[in-house]
Amino acid sequence: MATIQTDYRALAAGYLFPEISRRAATFLQEHPNTHLYRLGIGNTTEALSPTIVEALHHKVDLLSDRDTYTGYGDEQGDTALRVALQQFYHKRGVTLEADEFFISDGAKSDAAHVQSLFGTSDVVAVQDPAYPVYVDSNVVVGRAGTYEKKEGKYNKLVYLPATEENDFFPELPKEKVDIIYLCSPNNPTGAVATHEQLQQFVDYAKRHKAVIIFDAAYSEFISDDTLPRSIYEIEGAKECAIEINSFSKFAGFTGVRLGWSIVPKHLVVENSEVGEIHTMWFRHQVTFFNGASNISQAGGLAALTDQGLQESHEIIAYYMENATMIKEALESLGLTVYGGTNAPYVWVKTPNNLTSWEFFDQLLHQCHVLVTPGSGFGSSGEHYIRISAFGHKEQVALAVQSITENLQLN
Amino acid sequence: MATIQTDYRALAAGYLFPEISRRAATFLQEHPNTHLYRLGIGNTTEALSPTIVEALHHKVDLLSDRDTYTGYGDEQGDTALRVALQQFYHKRGVTLEADEFFISDGAKSDAAHVQSLFGTSDVVAVQDPAYPVYVDSNVVVGRAGTYEKKEGKYNKLVYLPATEENDFFPELPKEKVDIIYLCSPNNPTGAVATHEQLQQFVDYAKRHKAVIIFDAAYSEFISDDTLPRSIYEIEGAKECAIEINSFSKFAGFTGVRLGWSIVPKHLVVENSEVGEIHTMWFRHQVTFFNGASNISQAGGLAALTDQGLQESHEIIAYYMENATMIKEALESLGLTVYGGTNAPYVWVKTPNNLTSWEFFDQLLHQCHVLVTPGSGFGSSGEHYIRISAFGHKEQVALAVQSITENLQLN
Repeated sequence: MATIQTDYRALAAGYLFPEISRRAATFLQEHPNTHLYRLGIGNTTEALSPTIVEALHHKVDLLSDRDTYTGYGDEQGDTALRVALQQFYHKRGVTLEADEFFISDGAKSDAAHVQSLFGTSDVVAVQDPAYPVYVDSNVVVGRAGTYEKKEGKYNKLVYLPATEENDFFPELPKEKVDIIYLCSPNNPTGAVATHEQLQQFVDYAKRHKAVIIFDAAYSEFISDDTLPRSIYEIEGAKECAIEINSFSKFAGFTGVRLGWSIVPKHLVVENSEVGEIHTMWFRHQVTFFNGASNISQAGGLAALTDQGLQESHEIIAYYMENATMIKEALESLGLTVYGGTNAPYVWVKTPNNLTSWEFFDQLLHQCHVLVTPGSGFGSSGEHYIRISAFGHKEQVALAVQSITENLQLN
Repeated sequence: MATIQTDYRALAAGYLFPEISRRAATFLQEHPNTHLYRLGIGNTTEALSPTIVEALHHKVDLLSDRDTYTGYGDEQGDTALRVALQQFYHKRGVTLEADEFFISDGAKSDAAHVQSLFGTSDVVAVQDPAYPVYVDSNVVVGRAGTYEKKEGKYNKLVYLPATEENDFFPELPKEKVDIIYLCSPNNPTGAVATHEQLQQFVDYAKRHKAVIIFDAAYSEFISDDTLPRSIYEIEGAKECAIEINSFSKFAGFTGVRLGWSIVPKHLVVENSEVGEIHTMWFRHQVTFFNGASNISQAGGLAALTDQGLQESHEIIAYYMENATMIKEALESLGLTVYGGTNAPYVWVKTPNNLTSWEFFDQLLHQCHVLVTPGSGFGSSGEHYIRISAFGHKEQVALAVQSITENLQLN
């Protein structure tokens, strides 16, 4: 008699995005022929850059000829791509070995799977609000406990509030925790941690033999060179941190799928030998995964060339102009706005102490703009909404215009 | 203090393919300028078909234009692709709903992850020999127990020997088991289960509320229409079986990466409600995965058109001509040979009761041919080697000629 992994039942209903879709559909039924401006999901909209497109076509050509066709690739991902990533980090002063990089199909897979290296009794801390994958991947293996609906929290997780008071970067946990997820630039708040803030967490992790899982998927949106783009810019991080990153937002690969993780050989925890966690991740990846698409990997390699980087940064600048446009318009209305400077998300405080969903409804009904309620990312996201800066500029401009003209702030 | 998931330590050393590489490297060092014929790994070698290539280029073109660019895809995979798969099965008499299909990046990921839906105390049965992923994915979550080196077995797994005596398809387990991995056409033996054989297992599973995980990654290599290509051709399978399949060998996507799993809504186990396992797999996939590459999915859709299928079947026929060539040559030497008729693997009994590795060494040293020792797939694989039929025909012909001319069977 097979049994189910009952921890799946502890998953809170996949509420956020289905509920957004439901409210949008209801609105459209009641107001047919209305155009909705979609600034909810953080989904890229601009074309792949010419250098990437050329590399993708070229790889397809290679696969169409038996003399240049290749099947299974290198176990940790294409060696040339890992070396290119190594150099990409090196230019920013971070020295890693090429075989400390693991190519994946994107940050989500890595963010979800990396917890499987650790004991199921380890205590997990997440920023609040946070990307739901950190929480859900721990729920289904029993590490999060049960969901307490009233508080919107799992009883075994430690929530680290990121609020106005702490500039949306949490204080160190008061209790002892074992695994800490940090995301910077942050989804959803758009806040970016400073060297000092990350150093505190690294020091904490080393002191308590905790592990930091650092999600840097938006690092290329940082324009302020005083801010860290990698956790490994922080002294001591190689002994306590795993980094996850992606070509999704960096190079428009949300659909093409490509990412990477870094598990340094020096990373150790309580009962591990030096190098063991690195080797475990290697064994995990070669057992549970068979490599990212070789076409995507060819695209990623092109994205890391000088020309590729320049083109990607132009597209990022384009999205960041959207962010500025959104930010300035909302500020001109007197709203309190965070993020949107070194991250593609604008984090807006609701007016009149409205709940996230109330302001969501107001923007939908009055302005025909879809956003994401902050409460969907955790209880500390209540009274905020997230606006995504991804989108065609002319559409974002129309959305902003609609907000400016139609939002009734009494 | 974070701790490691200590079950990783129970993994037997990743012995097989590294050891093959080591022996090949040593041989080449001692015999420089020798050409080795590689018939070991089951890796595709022929170009992608024209219809697939055209679709891949077209998708890249779409992604290069902001008006046709797309980012994140449908949650379970491109709807058009799932509908095409539904029709592909329907033509063979299997009726499934399109949302019972989950598009993945390949069979390995699904084969490794699907165990996570079930209780960690469930008893797992595997065919012996078997594809190592079934075993290893259970080892690292503690379901396999400890490795007993002398017997080459994990103490909590139930091994179902597939031997000459049972035509390489196992008898039903004598003890009660909860999760049963079956692979047909089989890797490594090349054996294909009949309807009657699968019906026995489905009946067993229904009787004991066990789950069958059916790996059909080589189903397109079946030319004998009396043999089942899907577990769902078997009465009752929708209530007890999950099927995994892939475009890897079917359409040359070993590097491109694309596969699918089927979790029927009617599948139930001891403590599950109808539909619950299906929903759990949905939650798993949307949490731990963000979709296969949209380029790969466009290629998969093309592979399922009439023209695409015809072209893929021509490439499969090409590989199967290799299999016939290998089989006939070895039989002409008096060796006992299995498989290679409805599967791209030839399973060869070692002469003179040699161990798998002894015959491996003999083929390497006398014939310069690399194969895979059967013992690497489980203890019942001892005294066999696996020869892969993937390869350029002219290379396979030379390998076969080298075996015929140089193998010394005294």
